Amino acid sequence: MINEQYKNMLGGRSVIREFSEFAAARGKEIGYENVFDYSLGNPSVPVPDDYTKEMEELLKTKTSMELHGYSPSLGLPVFKESVAASLNRRFGMNYTPEYIFPTSGAAGALAHALRCVTKPGDEVLTFAPYFPEYGPYVNLTGAVLKVVPADTESFQINFEKLTEMLNENTAAVLINTPNNPSGAVYSAETLEKLAKLLTEKQQEYGHEIFIISDEPYREIVFDGAELPYVSRFYANTLSCYSYSKSLSLPGERIGYVAVNPACKDAELLVPMMGQISRGIGHNCPSSSIQLAVAKVVDETADMKVYETNMKLLYQALTDLGFSCVRPGGTFYIFPKALEEDAVAFCKKALQYDLILVPSDSFGVKGYFRMAYCIDTEKVERSLEALRRFVKENY
Amino acid sequence: MINEQYKNMLGGRSVIREFSEFAAARGKEIGYENVFDYSLGNPSVPVPDDYTKEMEELLKTKTSMELHGYSPSLGLPVFKESVAASLNRRFGMNYTPEYIFPTSGAAGALAHALRCVTKPGDEVLTFAPYFPEYGPYVNLTGAVLKVVPADTESFQINFEKLTEMLNENTAAVLINTPNNPSGAVYSAETLEKLAKLLTEKQQEYGHEIFIISDEPYREIVFDGAELPYVSRFYANTLSCYSYSKSLSLPGERIGYVAVNPACKDAELLVPMMGQISRGIGHNCPSSSIQLAVAKVVDETADMKVYETNMKLLYQALTDLGFSCVRPGGTFYIFPKALEEDAVAFCKKALQYDLILVPSDSFGVKGYFRMAYCIDTEKVERSLEALRRFVKENY
Repeated sequence: MINEQYKNMLGGRSVIREFSEFAAARGKEIGYENVFDYSLGNPSVPVPDDYTKEMEELLKTKTSMELHGYSPSLGLPVFKESVAASLNRRFGMNYTPEYIFPTSGAAGALAHALRCVTKPGDEVLTFAPYFPEYGPYVNLTGAVLKVVPADTESFQINFEKLTEMLNENTAAVLINTPNNPSGAVYSAETLEKLAKLLTEKQQEYGHEIFIISDEPYREIVFDGAELPYVSRFYANTLSCYSYSKSLSLPGERIGYVAVNPACKDAELLVPMMGQISRGIGHNCPSSSIQLAVAKVVDETADMKVYETNMKLLYQALTDLGFSCVRPGGTFYIFPKALEEDAVAFCKKALQYDLILVPSDSFGVKGYFRMAYCIDTEKVERSLEALRRFVKENY
Repeated sequence: MINEQYKNMLGGRSVIREFSEFAAARGKEIGYENVFDYSLGNPSVPVPDDYTKEMEELLKTKTSMELHGYSPSLGLPVFKESVAASLNRRFGMNYTPEYIFPTSGAAGALAHALRCVTKPGDEVLTFAPYFPEYGPYVNLTGAVLKVVPADTESFQINFEKLTEMLNENTAAVLINTPNNPSGAVYSAETLEKLAKLLTEKQQEYGHEIFIISDEPYREIVFDGAELPYVSRFYANTLSCYSYSKSLSLPGERIGYVAVNPACKDAELLVPMMGQISRGIGHNCPSSSIQLAVAKVVDETADMKVYETNMKLLYQALTDLGFSCVRPGGTFYIFPKALEEDAVAFCKKALQYDLILVPSDSFGVKGYFRMAYCIDTEKVERSLEALRRFVKENY
């Protein structure tokens, strides 16, 4: 018989997808350029030229076996070396290649990291607002996702609630900074406080509590700020990364888990991920893409547009009276809706061809997300629609 | 705490890998060209030129978003259409794109197919000799792999044992034709008999028993024979495919599950695989590779070398007195060892720089596997070593 658990998931509709499908359908009516589609977090800037050049060079110069042959089960050494060296250079870490496990993007990284440090029934805590896919990502491993209510002042961490929710079954804390959907970047102070609390609780419970740090937006930080690198604050950290946003390669499915060498049982974790792969059938990202990315790990796509868009939107939103935490990174902004029911708010916005996503599926009520990975020209045109929407309704 | 199940798997050594590592080490001493390495099933022929040309063309002509953007969660339509049309043309099937789910090679295909039609505790039957990775592939889903003893006469199916082992907990039967390691191709007669038996048992137990058909060697069939396409014989079939062997792209991780449209709940299965992906973190194979493969689905690498090698080896082995089923496909041959203990036999062969893999880990004792995906010139040179080995020891 077919599996009931997965069958029962089929009914569920993603709110993001629903709004995005509306945008596409509306685009067919009035031209997609006239739909102010803030629904999807798809990078809008091209991959760096050096990536394309490197891939062309590989196709010309490598033998078929070198380029397309099986990658060792723990990944291609050249990719692992390149990632480790880059992280050490940038964040003062001391990774060696054996602590790097290449994965199919951040989704693959989380699938391995979660299985490594939890067993079925364990609790994984995350913080609202959070990426809705964390639900299936965690729950389908057999562990259970629990959501700590938001710190709506700053979208840092609500430590009071976190302290209440930590318990002996807590195996891991899943964080995401810079954050989808809030755009918040956890400060060094936040990370220090988190590390201190978890260290105490580890002692109290007599077992590790791992941080699983989901970092696909790590390279999109505004105002020239430096991103506090999570793993520097807490030894038991597994950093999950994807090149989807930084290199604009979301479809190519490449990322990694970087295990802090000071982590408990650090030397076992990457080999364990190799075992996990056998059951979930990854067997590494594409070999040619590992080879090409290995050459451009320190580059990013030209992502200034995201900061430009953030500034335009933040200014316009606050001018219009929205209450809004200024994003420190990502390509999301997460203002408070102008009525309690965010779904009703976003539905009204549709009449102005503004596609906003209500916050409910991100684990908080009364907000909305705008994904501004779109052309600045379109952001500018959207502001007039935003003004009319607010003026005529609130 | 780290996960005990995966930690406990770390001790296990793969016999194939052990022999293969010996080959690599010995290669450093005497030159790899002098090691007759029959240990690994790595394709030795290059990818078709058309694949490389297509990838170069894509890099030149497609926008970054078209080439590297997110693939829909159920795969790129152009890939799914291309696969469905090719299977329909070649095997007289009636697939439409919605029955095709792109995966990270056959490992990814099996990971999805197994989860779709089993629940934890269900039994999955396979037939010795079998690919040893089926153990973790099945057992790490929560289902339990049970191995039906071999039909050593022909390496078809031992129906007597199969009938004994089928029971109410049997959710699926996992078959592999052409077969690794035996090289056997299941005849139409075998598949008809299997279909008949499973149809009876489905009625008896009041639930489906699915065939999960692992077909990465489908394009490597000898003597101009036609391969009986499993799904034509039995409606409840999920065909798992990989381009690793047929296009020599093992590192690129691309394959698919094709769900027979006449299968029970057929229209639910691909969407369910999309849900499964969320938990195991695949999210489709690389987008650029889906696009390139879509253009060359009917091509194969130039695989005549495998048949040439098979004929040389089969002749030499039978001349030397080995008992051996003639392979109908793949790049494997599976002769009976000349002593009961296949491990002892293969260890003696090492002294002649012949790297043979004992059959124990394939679920039968007293045989050995030779993977002849190597240059014909090397096969020819190896025959003298094989003769000396036999003459001096048996």
